[in-house]
This record gives sequence, C-alpha cells and structure tokens, in this order.
Amino acid sequence: MTEYSEIREAVAKLCQQFPGDYWRAKDRERAYPGEFVDALTQAGFLSVLIPEEYGGSGLPISAAAAILEEIQAQGCNGGACHAQMYVMGTVLRHGSEAQKAKYLPKVASGELRLQAFGVTEPTSGTDTLSLKTTAKLDPATGDYIVNGQKIWTSRAEHSDLMILLARTTPREQAAKRTDGLSVFIVDMKAALGNGLTIRPIETMMNHATTEVFFDNMRVPAENLIGEEGQGFKYILSGMNAERLLIAAECIGDAKWFIDKASAYAKERVLFGRPIGQNQGVQFPIARAYAQMRAAELMVLDGLRRYEAGENVGEQANMSKMLAAEASWAAGEACIQTHGGFGFAAEYDIERKFRETRLYQVAPISTNMILSFVAEHVLGLPRSY
Amino acid sequence: MTEYSEIREAVAKLCQQFPGDYWRAKDRERAYPGEFVDALTQAGFLSVLIPEEYGGSGLPISAAAAILEEIQAQGCNGGACHAQMYVMGTVLRHGSEAQKAKYLPKVASGELRLQAFGVTEPTSGTDTLSLKTTAKLDPATGDYIVNGQKIWTSRAEHSDLMILLARTTPREQAAKRTDGLSVFIVDMKAALGNGLTIRPIETMMNHATTEVFFDNMRVPAENLIGEEGQGFKYILSGMNAERLLIAAECIGDAKWFIDKASAYAKERVLFGRPIGQNQGVQFPIARAYAQMRAAELMVLDGLRRYEAGENVGEQANMSKMLAAEASWAAGEACIQTHGGFGFAAEYDIERKFRETRLYQVAPISTNMILSFVAEHVLGLPRSY
Amino acid sequence: MTEYSEIREAVAKLCQQFPGDYWRAKDRERAYPGEFVDALTQAGFLSVLIPEEYGGSGLPISAAAAILEEIQAQGCNGGACHAQMYVMGTVLRHGSEAQKAKYLPKVASGELRLQAFGVTEPTSGTDTLSLKTTAKLDPATGDYIVNGQKIWTSRAEHSDLMILLARTTPREQAAKRTDGLSVFIVDMKAALGNGLTIRPIETMMNHATTEVFFDNMRVPAENLIGEEGQGFKYILSGMNAERLLIAAECIGDAKWFIDKASAYAKERVLFGRPIGQNQGVQFPIARAYAQMRAAELMVLDGLRRYEAGENVGEQANMSKMLAAEASWAAGEACIQTHGGFGFAAEYDIERKFRETRLYQVAPISTNMILSFVAEHVLGLPRSY
Amino acid sequence: MTEYSEIREAVAKLCQQFPGDYWRAKDRERAYPGEFVDALTQAGFLSVLIPEEYGGSGLPISAAAAILEEIQAQGCNGGACHAQMYVMGTVLRHGSEAQKAKYLPKVASGELRLQAFGVTEPTSGTDTLSLKTTAKLDPATGDYIVNGQKIWTSRAEHSDLMILLARTTPREQAAKRTDGLSVFIVDMKAALGNGLTIRPIETMMNHATTEVFFDNMRVPAENLIGEEGQGFKYILSGMNAERLLIAAECIGDAKWFIDKASAYAKERVLFGRPIGQNQGVQFPIARAYAQMRAAELMVLDGLRRYEAGENVGEQANMSKMLAAEASWAAGEACIQTHGGFGFAAEYDIERKFRETRLYQVAPISTNMILSFVAEHVLGLPRSY
Repeated sequence: MTEYSEIREAVAKLCQQFPGDYWRAKDRERAYPGEFVDALTQAGFLSVLIPEEYGGSGLPISAAAAILEEIQAQGCNGGACHAQMYVMGTVLRHGSEAQKAKYLPKVASGELRLQAFGVTEPTSGTDTLSLKTTAKLDPATGDYIVNGQKIWTSRAEHSDLMILLARTTPREQAAKRTDGLSVFIVDMKAALGNGLTIRPIETMMNHATTEVFFDNMRVPAENLIGEEGQGFKYILSGMNAERLLIAAECIGDAKWFIDKASAYAKERVLFGRPIGQNQGVQFPIARAYAQMRAAELMVLDGLRRYEAGENVGEQANMSKMLAAEASWAAGEACIQTHGGFGFAAEYDIERKFRETRLYQVAPISTNMILSFVAEHVLGLPRSY
Repeated sequence: MTEYSEIREAVAKLCQQFPGDYWRAKDRERAYPGEFVDALTQAGFLSVLIPEEYGGSGLPISAAAAILEEIQAQGCNGGACHAQMYVMGTVLRHGSEAQKAKYLPKVASGELRLQAFGVTEPTSGTDTLSLKTTAKLDPATGDYIVNGQKIWTSRAEHSDLMILLARTTPREQAAKRTDGLSVFIVDMKAALGNGLTIRPIETMMNHATTEVFFDNMRVPAENLIGEEGQGFKYILSGMNAERLLIAAECIGDAKWFIDKASAYAKERVLFGRPIGQNQGVQFPIARAYAQMRAAELMVLDGLRRYEAGENVGEQANMSKMLAAEASWAAGEACIQTHGGFGFAAEYDIERKFRETRLYQVAPISTNMILSFVAEHVLGLPRSY
Repeated sequence: MTEYSEIREAVAKLCQQFPGDYWRAKDRERAYPGEFVDALTQAGFLSVLIPEEYGGSGLPISAAAAILEEIQAQGCNGGACHAQMYVMGTVLRHGSEAQKAKYLPKVASGELRLQAFGVTEPTSGTDTLSLKTTAKLDPATGDYIVNGQKIWTSRAEHSDLMILLARTTPREQAAKRTDGLSVFIVDMKAALGNGLTIRPIETMMNHATTEVFFDNMRVPAENLIGEEGQGFKYILSGMNAERLLIAAECIGDAKWFIDKASAYAKERVLFGRPIGQNQGVQFPIARAYAQMRAAELMVLDGLRRYEAGENVGEQANMSKMLAAEASWAAGEACIQTHGGFGFAAEYDIERKFRETRLYQVAPISTNMILSFVAEHVLGLPRSY
Repeated sequence: MTEYSEIREAVAKLCQQFPGDYWRAKDRERAYPGEFVDALTQAGFLSVLIPEEYGGSGLPISAAAAILEEIQAQGCNGGACHAQMYVMGTVLRHGSEAQKAKYLPKVASGELRLQAFGVTEPTSGTDTLSLKTTAKLDPATGDYIVNGQKIWTSRAEHSDLMILLARTTPREQAAKRTDGLSVFIVDMKAALGNGLTIRPIETMMNHATTEVFFDNMRVPAENLIGEEGQGFKYILSGMNAERLLIAAECIGDAKWFIDKASAYAKERVLFGRPIGQNQGVQFPIARAYAQMRAAELMVLDGLRRYEAGENVGEQANMSKMLAAEASWAAGEACIQTHGGFGFAAEYDIERKFRETRLYQVAPISTNMILSFVAEHVLGLPRSY
C-alpha cells in the first residue's frame, strides 16, 4: 500500500513515541492505551472518515485503511480505537441530521469517544438475527427500555457512546425475517449505574473487551437511528467497511512480523552463519511475504471498489480472511525464526502473535467467510 | 481479469470448437494439437505482441495474458504454443532490424513457427550459467559450430525456429561471470539431420517436450542475436514476461477447476442432498477461489508494472508461484469433489490436473522463487 | 514394518523381475499386468489369507499387508490384484461350507480369479444403502434375476468371479434401514454376454476399472452368500480389512517415493553441490518420512488389533487417511525434488504419483473418514 | 496411551485439586505453581524414575511419560517440574556412587529440587559446542571457578540444584570437537549471591524461565559429574529421554484440546443446531485427533525402544516434532471452535494455546529435527 505516503509518515512518527515498552507495560497490566488513543485523536487520524462539515477530514476509506495498517506495521495496536472508524459510519449513513450535528463534531474533536459496538450476544454469536436483547417503547415516557446482554463489546469502559442493536419487534411478529431489529446510539456515561453494567473479560491479548448487561436501561426515543425495525440492514451495511479496515490492520501486522523476522534472520548467527541463510528459516518468511502481498492487493481492490460504490461483500470477506491468514503465517514464521526469544515479552513478538490471532475469529470467522464465498459467490447450497 | 472482454469472447468462441474430446484424443496419443494452434494463429491471437509494422497487433502484454488465461479457463491448453508469445520477445528486443524484418512477419502470419527455446541442459537445470553447449565461430565459413545438448525444449518438433543459448567464450575466459553466452536464432528445418537431432520425452502430460542434440550444427553468423557474449542478459530480460504469462495460464486453469467443481457440487446428490452442501466439499473450493483471486490480482499488478516499464522481478516471480499454487489447490479441490469421476478421463479433470502440476516446476521452481524473494526482496543471505 | 522379513524378501525378489519399463509399457497401453499377477499367484502371495485347508497359507492379515506394502515399495502396483485379498474374505466369513469348498481352492491355485467387487453404483457413491441394482428371485427357475449397474468395478475384465451386492427387498419393505441387500458370487465368464456387459473406464492411472451392466443376468440361488437381506452387514465387515491393506500399500508407495527422492537429492548437483543440501529440498522429504512412519505405526496398530478380534473401525479409517496423505506428501516431495525429470515417464515417478493419488478417494474418501471419526469416535453430530 | 492406568487415575485425581482457576491465577501473576509441584512430589510422581534404592519407584520411562501426559491432559502444566524427570538421569547415569547417594534420596523425597538445567547460552542456541561459559580449576582450592551466562534456564528460582554444562578445556586445545565440556551439579542456594545471579525472563506463557549469570562462582571439584571433558556426551545421552517426555506432554495437551473442542462443538448451538454438525468445525477436530493418535503411537514406539536399550534418536526427534505439531493443530482447532470464547481466559484454552506453542521450539526446534532426519536417517548432506 503505497499511497497516502504523507499520512503514513505522520502516523509512523507518532507511533515511534509509543515503543515496545509502552505496549508491554499496558499488556502486562491489561491497561487501556489511552495516551496512544489520545495522540491519534489529537492528530486527527481517527476522524479522517468524518466529513469536513462535521469536523473531520472527509477522506475516503482507503485513508483510514492506510492509517490503521501503518499503526500495526509500526508495532502499535489500533484495536484500542479502530472501531470509531467504522462504528461512526452507522451514524453518518443512517442517522438524522440532528444526530449527526449533535455527535459527529464531538467525536471528531475527541470530546466524545464512539468506540463501543453492541451487537453480538452470548447465545447469538454470528447469527445476529437470533439476538435476544429487547428495546420496548415505554409510552409513558417515550423512552425505549432495554433489557438483555451483549458480549465482546470491546472498549465499552473507554467509550462515551455505544451503537446498540436490539429487538424492537418480536421475531414472530416481524414481517420479514430480517425486520424487527433497531439501532440506537446510547449515552453510556448516563446509563452506567442506571441499567447498564459493564464487566470486563480477560483475554489472551490486551483487548479491553467486555460483557455489557442491560437491566431496564432507558434510551430516549430521539436516540433511535433511522427507522425502527430496519437496524439489521444498517448494521450489515457497515460490515464490509469493518472487514476491509481490519484486513488492512492484518497487513500491517504481517509487515511488522516480516520485518522483524528478516532482520533477526540476518543478524542471528548460529553454527557460524546467519540463520537466514537456511532455507528452513528464509522460506517461511518469503512465503509469508508473498501471501501478504497478494492479500494486500485484495484489500486495495476492495477499498477501491468500495469507494466506487460497488458491493464489496466478496472482496471484503476474502480480504479479511486472506489478510488474517497472512498475518498469522508471518507471525508463525517470526516466532519460529526467533526460537526461544520469540516467546520473551521483551521482543514484542509474542504480544503481536497473541494479538493478531484474533482476526481469524473476529469480526467474522474464517468458516463464515468460506460459507459466504461458497454460497454467494460460487452459488453452492447454504451449508448450515 | 476483466479487461479485453472482446478478445476473451473471441478466444472463448474459438476454444469451443476444441472441446474435451479433442484434447482427450490428443492426450491419449500424445499428439500435437496442430489444428488448435493453427486456429489461434489464423485468428491472430498468437501474434498480438508483435508490432503492427511486422504484421502483429502490437498489443501490450496484458492482452497476451488475457488470451492465454482464457484458453486455459476454457479447458484448452496453451502449452502447445504459448512460448511464441515470449520467445518472440527476444528477437524483438535484441534482434537487428534485418532479423526482425526477416522473421517477425512470417511468425505473425504463421508461415514460420517460433516455438522452441533452447536454454536448459540436463546438467545445468536452473543454473543457466553452467550450461555446456558451445558455439564456436568457424573462421573458414563464418558459421558458428554448435555442439551440446538441451533438454525440456518443448515443441521442438513443431517449430521452424529455435532461440538457442550457447557458450561462445569459455567460462574461465569470460570477463564477467555472466558473460560469454550468446543467443542464436536457428532454422530448425535446415538443421534437422544436419547436426540437429530431436528426441521426444514422454511426460505425465501431453507436453511435446524434447531433448535436442547438436553435433557440429552450423548456424550462420547472421543468426547471432545482439552482441556475442551478451546472451545471458537477453534471456533474463524475457523471463519475467514468461513467468507472468504462465501465471495467467494458471489463473485460467484455476478458474476452469473451480467452475467444474462448483457445478458438480451443485448437481451431484448423495445421501439425499447436493454434495456441495457439505462444508468439507464447499470450503476447499471456496478457499481455492479466494487464493486464485488474490493470485490474479498479483498477476494483474505485475502486468501493469511491466507495461509501465518497471522491473517486475518480484511480481513476476511471486505471481508464478501464487498462481501455480492456486491452480493446484483448485485442481485438488476439483478432483476430490468428483470422487472416482475425477480420475475418469471423460471428465477432463484428470488431464488438467496433470497439466497444471507442471507449473510448480516450470519455467522456474517454487524453491527458486522463494530463494529469489528471500535474497532480492527481503535482503536475506543467498542460501545456495 | 519390519516383520515377515522372509516374505518381504521373496516379494522384493519377484518384483525385481518387473522393473520400471514393464510398468511403463503397461501404463502406456493401459494393459493389465497379467504376467505380474500370475507370478504373484504362482508364488502363493495372493492366497496367504486363504486357510490352509483350502489351499492357502492361512496367514494373518498382517502378512497380506506386508506383501502389498512391499509390492508398492518396489515400484510395482498391487492394484491389479489386491482385491482378491479382501474380497475373498466375504466368501470365507459368510459363505457356506459348499461355497468355500467350491471356490477357495481354485482361487488359491489361481485357476479362478476373484478380483471383482460389485458394490458402488453411479448414483450411490459411498451411500451404499441407496444402491439400485436389484436381484429378484425367479420362482420358476430358482435363479435370481439381476438388473442394474455398477461402477468402479475394477479388474472386472480380468476376473472370473465377482462378489455382487444387490437389493433383494425393496427399501420401503425392509424391516430395517440396513436390511434388504444381499451378496452373490457371480460366475462372470458364464454371465458375459448373458446379461452382463463390461465397459472399461479410462482413468488417470492404469487401473483396469470398469462399469458393469446387468440386464436380466441370472445368478443361481446357490450363489447367494449367507442369508438373503443381510448383505450390507457382510460387505461392511470386510471394509476395515480393505482399508488397512490399502493403507499398507500407501506406506509402500511413500517408501518408494522417499527412497527415490533421497537418492536423487544426493546425486543431483546444481550450483556446485547436491540439491539435497538445500533445506528446501531435504525438509519436505524428511517431513514426508516422519509422516509415513507415524502412519505406518497406525497401520500396524490396526492390523494387530484386527488380528486380536477388536473392532478396528477407528484405526482402519485413520490408517487409510493418514497413509494416503503420507504417500501423497512423499509423492509431492519426490516429483518436486526431481524438477522436470519428475514428469518424464522414464523416471517412473509421474506414474506412481498418478497411481497413489487415488487413495485419497478410494475405497473411501478423506471426507467420509473425517466424518466417521467426528461422529463415531468424538461423538459429534452427523454432518450429512 | 493405555498403560499405567492406575498411575494415570491417581494423577488425574490429584490434578482435579488444581482446576482452571488455580492455573489462571498463577498465570495472571506469573507465579510458580509450588503447591502443585509439592503435591506431585509428595505423591511420588516426580521420582518414579529414581531407582528404589535411592528412594524412588524405579519405574521405566514410559511411566514418567504417562504421568506427564496425564498432567497435561487434565489441563495442568508439568512444565513447572518435568525437568526433574530427565535432568535427574544425568546424575543417575554418569554420577559417582557418592553423588547418587548424596543427592538422589533427597530429590526423591522432595527435600532437594533438581529442576534447573544450565546448557543453552544466548549466543550458542542449539549449537551447544559453541558455548562460552568456562569452568577453570583453581589449584589453590580445588574448586572450579565458573564464569559466563546461560539462558532459558527454566525453574532456576525454584530449584536447589542445577546441572551445569561448562567448558573446562578451550575449544582449540580439545582433542576432539566434542571434548572439553564438563558437567557439574551446582548447589544453587549456596551459590546465590556468591557468583550466581538469576534474572527471570517474562514470556508468553507462565514458564518460570530465567537467565543465569556466573561471576566467579565456585563449584567444588567433587561436584564434577563423570570425567572432565566428557560432558557433551553426558548431556546428549539425556536428550532423547527429554524429547520423548515432552512429546508425551504434547500428546496430553492435544487430548485436552480435543476434549474441550468436541464438548463445546456438541453443546454450542448457532443457527439452530450444534456447531459441531458443521464439517468446517468437526473436520479440523477430527483431523487433529488422527494426527494426535499417530504421534502418540510414535511416542509409545520410542519409549518402548528406549526401554529396550535401542538408540532412539530417530523416534525421539520425530515424536517431539509430530506431537508438538499435533498439539498445535488441536489447539488451533480448539481456539477456532470456541470463537471469541477461545480467547477468554476463563475458558483456559488461550492459556494452553500459549503454553503448547513453545514445544515447536523447545527443547529443540522443528527445523533442527528435520535436519536430523534428513542427515542421520535419510543420509542427505548436512545443510548448515
């Protein structure tokens, strides 16, 4: 990805202020990299997709991809804030003018953090239509009363706003299978303690993810986004952007691993010569490089088509799968190249290795992508 | 690969005149598909890279790639004639005006077939600089006297001209390691029986490949291409084009396999449902599809850069590796999807399966490509 | 597999009379290796499982495995006759004393060839219970009248007897799902032209496989094996033996490939040193070796348990899968190690490569084995 | 591994007192599982290899393998104490009667912990002959003076004794390449602060590994094991046992992953059915199972041969490689089956996933094993 070279350089420069020991300390304490997110926010990198009229840069999605990729390629972790990039799109595409005017400028300035995305539930997994959280309009107050639970709501403790998907019409009463779900924008600070509970989940990587519980949480009707009952469509419409952006992050991870592995293979001497002279060491790195470059072209193709207004379901899904697998291949090559040192926290490799593994599962698993390709691209029967 | 849609349609239409039973018959008898090559020649497809002034279409290399890819995607086999596309480039780039005027128009018209490329020798393999065939200038006649042997000289029995690489200066007397080799254009019909012997090699696929033996074969000095001693450079300069074109053929093979596998998985019913409903059947096809699309983007990127005059060593090599592996993955998925029928000649799958395997070895093996990437892209030490 | 060393030596010695050019000639002409089968028969190797009272050696199944493995490891192909080893078991286990006395001594002596196994049909595949060939008792004559079709009936043209599975009770009238099928021993020479037609199928390898058609073919009632309606059980009972024996053949193939690859890697010099010094060449061979040795232990474990009377469904299936994958890994390493020469018929590698690929599909595909393990070993839900 | 069923049951029962939350707490705090090690010690499991005359059980190595495998299969981690099993062997095989009488009974009783193995150094890696730590005899005191550094000396902070390999004769003065290294048994408690410094290394898993530094550390001459200069041979002689035991642990890990994955795949319902009904979910688990069973047979074969006094270099190395790869395949299948939950600490999967990855690198990397097989089994040239 060779474009946006100025933005990339600026991102790289910013990232160099957050070296490995910054991330290791956060990782050790499972702490949120607030300073890093603040720096990105101040520099305007997290608001590049927000239109200029709302205080952002109004750049196309490929700029966001370049930023996220560069963050990862520098050894930092955009997982603490990448959601703002695509979550914001739900408001932008489907929110009212009033909602946009109310929220987007503050998101752009950093006054409000829009990082939480409440969709998945413990029993629904990727079967979004089976979600059970309900939002019922209380005629007395005009508020929606929300009850239920979400899981994998990352950054919930570090966000002011949450985009929430809940059922407003019981499944059996909905006209269409995909009807009956609605999207809300939730003021989390107000709701905390008033029906909203957040419980952090400890995970393999420092991911600030949580479970959130709704117990008669009130959401004003004005916080409904778009039309009631059309929420599933709104959420779907943002998924391709999310997949492309996360694919770009995987490309960044892969590049970081390949750079680290190559550098170490050149300098580490065993049996009287650099270990990189062994094909058993160099071939896996070279192979991961080729795999990464091919995945990168797929990401770029997806971004280009997205910007041209095409339906990029195929490209976005395949990009995510290929890029996540390329970053894993690169991670495997890197950790193996480093021998024991690959497992030492000090080298940062084990941290990135843990972090990048997630992307074979989130935001969509490899199996679901293969099912998508089989069914929607190749026309094979649905398998599940 | 969506461009050149008119050319692609025309190629597809032509190919439909050469259905599976044509190729099966040729395969069974290890016979040369002369009718197919003639049809391609008559239609002008094999001369698209020859400049218009010499009777060709003067199209860029991506047109040739589109043609070769389409041939394979239709289930035909361009291996019988693809060499003309890239072998011709040696004459075009390095030949004299007289040589071009003499040969290219007849190649374009089909009067002369330029299909043979005499480079590899039994003991040299891919270590081209170690080749042993010599061409010594005979001061008495002004002819070069050629002695030695080539192997894997495909289509030699079905070609009028051969591009030959031979040593004109002994290795130890050459100023540089890469000096001392020269390129000739050989009139094979004249040479046959006059120092030139061709011995076919029976191979796994119907590939018309041969060993050729030179025993005091005379080549007039005017048939030297470019400068004496600079032949290695001339040959190298054509390799990237060859790799890109063969990568395009692999993409075509992969598409053919994926189409066949998908179609069969939809229609074949076992245990009361289409076998394509099984993830064990559909996932390998979907995965091969994604792998193919990513490799295709790499080929397209390589072609675009080639046409822009960039050095495409990296892209050409990785394209060939990724495309050959994608076609093999698709072939494996296809043959496995078909169960026993995949092995029956009647389905054509086993034939394509045999044919496409070659491209992990020729014109350059996967190991050599990984070595190239490791050394020249990642800067790792040379491993051999 | 270190046991039966005397038998192995004798087999190896016999095989050396049938070197590569014998097999290449057969392969080129898709001819049956009758001389080889005769030699094995004369030497008594094909009747080791027949009890001594019927003229065989009465050895346990591991002896048959050793013989078949050794045949493959010597570069020969037991596919022309291996069926006799396990098809015979159906008669032995389920036939009447009269049937055994009538057939087994002649099978042991070679007077009668029992090589054909008519089970699979074009539309049934591995879903044996859905087969459509019917055998109806004709009260007038006491004969069964057989109508229908089989496919992949290998060696049908070179066999005197066929074990045939046909439906004697319509599916909807059978008491249990698995009832209603019966096994017959068919005198093929008598039936040929009298209701039996054999049509050879041309395949990727020289496999002598056929389609057979039954048009009112008469089978005397005395040729019914065991009880009417219990045939499915009888056929199932022989499948584990078949899978173990074919797994042993795959181990033999793998050994042949590994030997060939290692030998060539040691002697072939490129860039001034044996190619086997490259980890890119030696690692795939070493890896295939380890894979083969582990699969071999599984085969041996399965054979040992079989002989102890245990149910070896798990071991037989996993043996077949692991051994077939090991032979393919070895084949891939071998063909790739040989570069272009791997594709030349003269080296025999391409022939073995084609032959060994079948065992990922036959007699049972990898997917069906994984389904078996998932369902019957791990207790997961049936997936199809 | 079906033997030692009583010991296995006892181990399993003990392990049930140390459930997931015990290990999660230790992992979170990177704390040593002292209670678990004490319990194993009290129960006598860690001293099964010590002869009865020295207070152990005098069991063969397969008993130790069964214990370690069972510990892993129960979700516990033997990495905190497994070294005692094989490190002890150095004393047993090469120590004097006095040394054995002095140390082994106390090791057996748990009074002395023999867990530290000081071999690898930062610059030597697996090239043990290049190690730089020196031990010089001080004629004045009769002590050896040790200077240098070790790395990956696991459990050093939790051990009373260390087996140390150091150079007693400069490389250039040694008669043979492999001479000049000597083995000592070091009283770590006495040495700590007297020339011995231990620095913990933070790693991806809770592994209690360290760097140790020697600055004029004194070791009494009576602590020399065996003959001076013969230490390399002594260390080598224990490596096969170590590899077999660690392979057994990997088998245990694989079983744990397969059990967890199967159980979850049965109970987790998505899209209206258990996810285990999807071949995309069940096939990787089934495949890992088959891979594990084959590797397990290799481990058992290696143990059997070891006990029979055979050289098991081939089996021990291949066992370690195959078992480590099987446990990784099982870990990958398990984490992927669990989706997001696989990454939640609460499920223990991510912890085991991190832990088991190490065994592709330690105590010997996959590349070194492939090199061993290539060179010493297949007779290919040494590649490095």
